[in-house]
Amino acid sequence: MSSYDVVGDWGTSRLRLFRMEQGQVTARREGPGIAEAGANAAQAFAQAIAPWLEDGTPGTIRLCGMAGARDGWVEAPYADCPATAQDWRTAAVRFDWQGAPLSILAGLACTDEDGVPDVMRGEETQIFGAMHRNPDLAQGRHLIVLPGTHNKWSLVEDGRIVSFRTVPTGELFALLRDQSTLGPKADPADAAQEAEGFAEGLGRAGEGRLLTSLFAARAKRLRAGRSPDWAAGYLSGLLIGCEIAEVRALLGDVSGITLIGDQRLCARYAEALEAQGLSSRSLSGDDCVLAGLTLPENAA
Amino acid sequence: MSSYDVVGDWGTSRLRLFRMEQGQVTARREGPGIAEAGANAAQAFAQAIAPWLEDGTPGTIRLCGMAGARDGWVEAPYADCPATAQDWRTAAVRFDWQGAPLSILAGLACTDEDGVPDVMRGEETQIFGAMHRNPDLAQGRHLIVLPGTHNKWSLVEDGRIVSFRTVPTGELFALLRDQSTLGPKADPADAAQEAEGFAEGLGRAGEGRLLTSLFAARAKRLRAGRSPDWAAGYLSGLLIGCEIAEVRALLGDVSGITLIGDQRLCARYAEALEAQGLSSRSLSGDDCVLAGLTLPENAA
Repeated sequence: MSSYDVVGDWGTSRLRLFRMEQGQVTARREGPGIAEAGANAAQAFAQAIAPWLEDGTPGTIRLCGMAGARDGWVEAPYADCPATAQDWRTAAVRFDWQGAPLSILAGLACTDEDGVPDVMRGEETQIFGAMHRNPDLAQGRHLIVLPGTHNKWSLVEDGRIVSFRTVPTGELFALLRDQSTLGPKADPADAAQEAEGFAEGLGRAGEGRLLTSLFAARAKRLRAGRSPDWAAGYLSGLLIGCEIAEVRALLGDVSGITLIGDQRLCARYAEALEAQGLSSRSLSGDDCVLAGLTLPENAA
Repeated sequence: MSSYDVVGDWGTSRLRLFRMEQGQVTARREGPGIAEAGANAAQAFAQAIAPWLEDGTPGTIRLCGMAGARDGWVEAPYADCPATAQDWRTAAVRFDWQGAPLSILAGLACTDEDGVPDVMRGEETQIFGAMHRNPDLAQGRHLIVLPGTHNKWSLVEDGRIVSFRTVPTGELFALLRDQSTLGPKADPADAAQEAEGFAEGLGRAGEGRLLTSLFAARAKRLRAGRSPDWAAGYLSGLLIGCEIAEVRALLGDVSGITLIGDQRLCARYAEALEAQGLSSRSLSGDDCVLAGLTLPENAA
């Protein structure tokens, strides 16, 4: 019998594998994301896990994220919202991989009141993990936000994921900063100027008018002596602020917000929420994804 | 004495020269835009005009647009709004070019009530041209919109340009369609599907929530059988609809709108305005730029 299990988060841009022994991470390996691995996903997985196989076959293997996408490794279904952890786990696709039982966890799908569909793959693992680690989140109604390229704003209630909305703010920001005539086309070097721009963008966002506020990122460089770093901060503050204003209009009362993700990005969102009078707490995305991947079989 | 004049519109992406004789265009020439010509603008201009010089030196040469930008040929100032045609023409930069008096027309600058600056270069020529050709536009208060990469929404009053706002909707649309995970990354092939998407995007825009409506362009392809062409139309309708909703919130009553530009794009805006109960008329951008470049010396 094997003495270790493998869990992994296989996203668009990278594969992260964790070797688990007695509930602890004892080793990590990385590999290419699904976007790069594509049709060679099986081979990329075998290569990433290879060194561990010298110690025998893993007891179980469990993967979440884009591994289960249509263009991933093996397509896993979407579980429909509202979904409990049990609904979600039941929907996983399972197969034998070199003698080990391998599951690719399902994504989640929901439909809004206008009939517009939405989907996630990977973030549900973090959300279920967060609720398992923080039992207060599994009681009552909460808003959980996972900022990133495609932000997920999720309503949870008594441990179920009730509904969610994807907002591609991170992708839009990267396009505007790097590819447009509005952004600096470079990473900011001067943190103080960037912070000043961020605050100004947040202030402007209070009016909730994104499109008519974008061009200031360029005009203020031309006519008001602002720097490229200021412009990067301004665009970030404007987008995040407008995102929060829109979500508030959509969801009504959104007090008690939990942010999950990269520490720096969560701090930005916390500042932007604060600017609109909303408090939040932040959880580590890495902790939550591991908690979700190692959810005990009997988790509700 | 020369028997012809030359006027030209030198934008970011192309140079268009017109040979004028007795008030009529008798020939046209094209050349590279300022983005391409850059530091070699003088040479690019000489090359574009060369064939006409065989008939002698032009009487006058007048250019508008990015020729006068900081990174253009010779920098021309911005005239401040509110500006009459006379204010604007007076601000041109003039120099001798191979024996001919050459003017590069000024841009316009304004500052909104929050102190945020805005600028245009080239569009003012079309607006003054439109008012000259259509005397009703030079009386009373009107909203003139020039849709394109960077849309200009301009308030004119009794022949003056009072203020304007740049909205980079066209640039954002191109980024989303061609470079994002939301768009089809290709020109639409099926006009009917694209039109269906456009109408759906317009409908969604009525709620004025751009960021939280973007992801449907992708989710509906994944989960509701929509095509890439549909997605391109949806993004276009959503962006244009949200732009109009924002401008209405900004300007209040905006009845009696005049669109100037490319016929197909003006038709899109007319449809989007109509969807929000606003009527408009469209003028040809080419006619307006020529009228502005050939404004008589005594125009108000």
